[in-house]
Amino acid sequence: MTRAVKRNSTAARQGWHPGVLAESGRMNQPSPTSASLTAAPASAPAPAEARLQPEQRGAYPMFRAIATRWSDNDAYGHVNNVIYYHWFDTVVNSHLVAQGALDIAQGTTIGLVVETHCNYFTPLAFPQGVELGLRVAHLGRTSVRYEIGVFAEGAATAAAQGHFIHVYVDRATRRPQALPPVLLQALQPLRAAG
Amino acid sequence: MTRAVKRNSTAARQGWHPGVLAESGRMNQPSPTSASLTAAPASAPAPAEARLQPEQRGAYPMFRAIATRWSDNDAYGHVNNVIYYHWFDTVVNSHLVAQGALDIAQGTTIGLVVETHCNYFTPLAFPQGVELGLRVAHLGRTSVRYEIGVFAEGAATAAAQGHFIHVYVDRATRRPQALPPVLLQALQPLRAAG
Amino acid sequence: MTRAVKRNSTAARQGWHPGVLAESGRMNQPSPTSASLTAAPASAPAPAEARLQPEQRGAYPMFRAIATRWSDNDAYGHVNNVIYYHWFDTVVNSHLVAQGALDIAQGTTIGLVVETHCNYFTPLAFPQGVELGLRVAHLGRTSVRYEIGVFAEGAATAAAQGHFIHVYVDRATRRPQALPPVLLQALQPLRAAG
Amino acid sequence: MTRAVKRNSTAARQGWHPGVLAESGRMNQPSPTSASLTAAPASAPAPAEARLQPEQRGAYPMFRAIATRWSDNDAYGHVNNVIYYHWFDTVVNSHLVAQGALDIAQGTTIGLVVETHCNYFTPLAFPQGVELGLRVAHLGRTSVRYEIGVFAEGAATAAAQGHFIHVYVDRATRRPQALPPVLLQALQPLRAAG
Repeated sequence: MTRAVKRNSTAARQGWHPGVLAESGRMNQPSPTSASLTAAPASAPAPAEARLQPEQRGAYPMFRAIATRWSDNDAYGHVNNVIYYHWFDTVVNSHLVAQGALDIAQGTTIGLVVETHCNYFTPLAFPQGVELGLRVAHLGRTSVRYEIGVFAEGAATAAAQGHFIHVYVDRATRRPQALPPVLLQALQPLRAAG
Repeated sequence: MTRAVKRNSTAARQGWHPGVLAESGRMNQPSPTSASLTAAPASAPAPAEARLQPEQRGAYPMFRAIATRWSDNDAYGHVNNVIYYHWFDTVVNSHLVAQGALDIAQGTTIGLVVETHCNYFTPLAFPQGVELGLRVAHLGRTSVRYEIGVFAEGAATAAAQGHFIHVYVDRATRRPQALPPVLLQALQPLRAAG
Repeated sequence: MTRAVKRNSTAARQGWHPGVLAESGRMNQPSPTSASLTAAPASAPAPAEARLQPEQRGAYPMFRAIATRWSDNDAYGHVNNVIYYHWFDTVVNSHLVAQGALDIAQGTTIGLVVETHCNYFTPLAFPQGVELGLRVAHLGRTSVRYEIGVFAEGAATAAAQGHFIHVYVDRATRRPQALPPVLLQALQPLRAAG
Repeated sequence: MTRAVKRNSTAARQGWHPGVLAESGRMNQPSPTSASLTAAPASAPAPAEARLQPEQRGAYPMFRAIATRWSDNDAYGHVNNVIYYHWFDTVVNSHLVAQGALDIAQGTTIGLVVETHCNYFTPLAFPQGVELGLRVAHLGRTSVRYEIGVFAEGAATAAAQGHFIHVYVDRATRRPQALPPVLLQALQPLRAAG
């Protein structure tokens, strides 16, 4: 197994100090030095985000392991922020294929991604192992909101967390479709505890 | 130039109908079918997101061209949602290096990404050309919020838009650092018009 | 485990017929229709390549599992030819880190890749599991030639096989260095049987 | 343009000394320290490879620019060896789409990659610009061998060079197909000078 390597010390050496995270929280609030720049109204941070904290494992009903790759690390020596989204795609679609809810090549209804988001708390680095917690936080008539927690192998607290929203469409016409019954069934074990 | 190819018809054939976008907006609001699933409070969608509309080119003070690659298209034949973030990294860091505000190999202060987000309105596909609009929407003492609009080459309306937040840290200790003057200078031309 | 999903039928549906492989072999030899184009002498195919056959598992002394990712599939719905090289990097460097022979962040001697090659026999597709066989076929004073067989999970015959050559250099000066003893030790279990 | 940034000094600082290249050439030949390892016969290096030298721009009839991306650099701060193959895919397919010889979504005949190869002489690094020289070195009844030279923007000598071989198959049955006339036409300007 590629993930069965011993924990490397890169991540530890490069660990952000607690102050970074707090700083990251504070920076969503007005500050004196930002007086000359104004955010577009549509993208003003929700107050909730200013208090964002990493979640614990118990917040996710299901986990899947991810083996990191050499190419996940970028020029700064840790997993690049973009890679987390490659993992999101992988964990969701792996689950759906395993449950018979996604036929990549032939399915007539497919999920298109219309929104993605991620917050990063602690760096990760190849070759360490990673575990992704997965839950479904919202179901619409034609859409699903997945929330994903990224944990260093065995860690209690998330290194990052994010979400992405699938809207289901007809493969050929790309018009929205009601979520198919086989999908609803596959999402049952991912329901958020709350 | 890789981007100097004629416009291909893939994107047009795969264009989402307006209903998809509206559906995407509506799905952030409570709906009867979602009664059995509850969103975690920390990630409840802000009301503003439910009204999200693609922006026009004038919303961005600076543009850079991106040449798509074969590998940008995924199994569904259009640019994968993750690739947009590779473009975000590229456009921001290209600007900073060009302005002398980022020395990837030697700089003692580096920007770590603590939050990323993207909304997708219209699909794109290799080999079409893409242009990224870039603005700085918020400056904190140690952080910068970039907002990026993704436009099909020559298009008036964004195909996608997102943001990412850099927090500046000391390369060795990873402790937060005030934004260096050379960076503040490099960000001047990216100030949002508002 | 992302790789613990059931075998999907995509690869089977897209399996190349034997004729493709034979064709691939034949195409390295002169043919009437190629009379008007001449290959550069330096890159003339070696006669051995014209007889290239996929190897069996026994040809490799060590195996590591690779979990495929959504992004491994390209617009044709199977793993893109480039992705195999991401796996090569990963399997070799995972082994070296696990053996204490590679410190990505701090090592003073690093292996730079000077040559890579791959032949593809049978397509693979996410989410199927993959296993990589690894052997060391040649050791120079400052270089190592790794040979890698790519097998669908549980398959007897390689879906692809390739090699890559590392030359060891001083991290700072990039001048060639003799292979360090800890590396030679790590390569022992990878010696080709022959 | 992302590639219109000033040359950064990363590549220069990390330039391999001439000794590396020579070493790379020598390492394909038997050496005393390799006595205990034997290469598999099928993969024995051709004598020609031991004398491999980087080519000049004149060896390629056509060029296309490639804009590097942040994610092209790996943990060692230069473009990862795998990325060159992403560029190969891009330059060939861009040319074919521009010439009307490839319809990614609908074409009934597609080119599958059966062999790829690359030799690396000099490192490259984002954000520097890159230019790819392209030629067709061999045409079979159902296959094409492309040879690609990778040049730092404006450089006279290749930083890397490689090839890849497409075999044409029916999209549905994956059986080999004769090269279509529109493809043969598109390949005319890529014929090797020799």
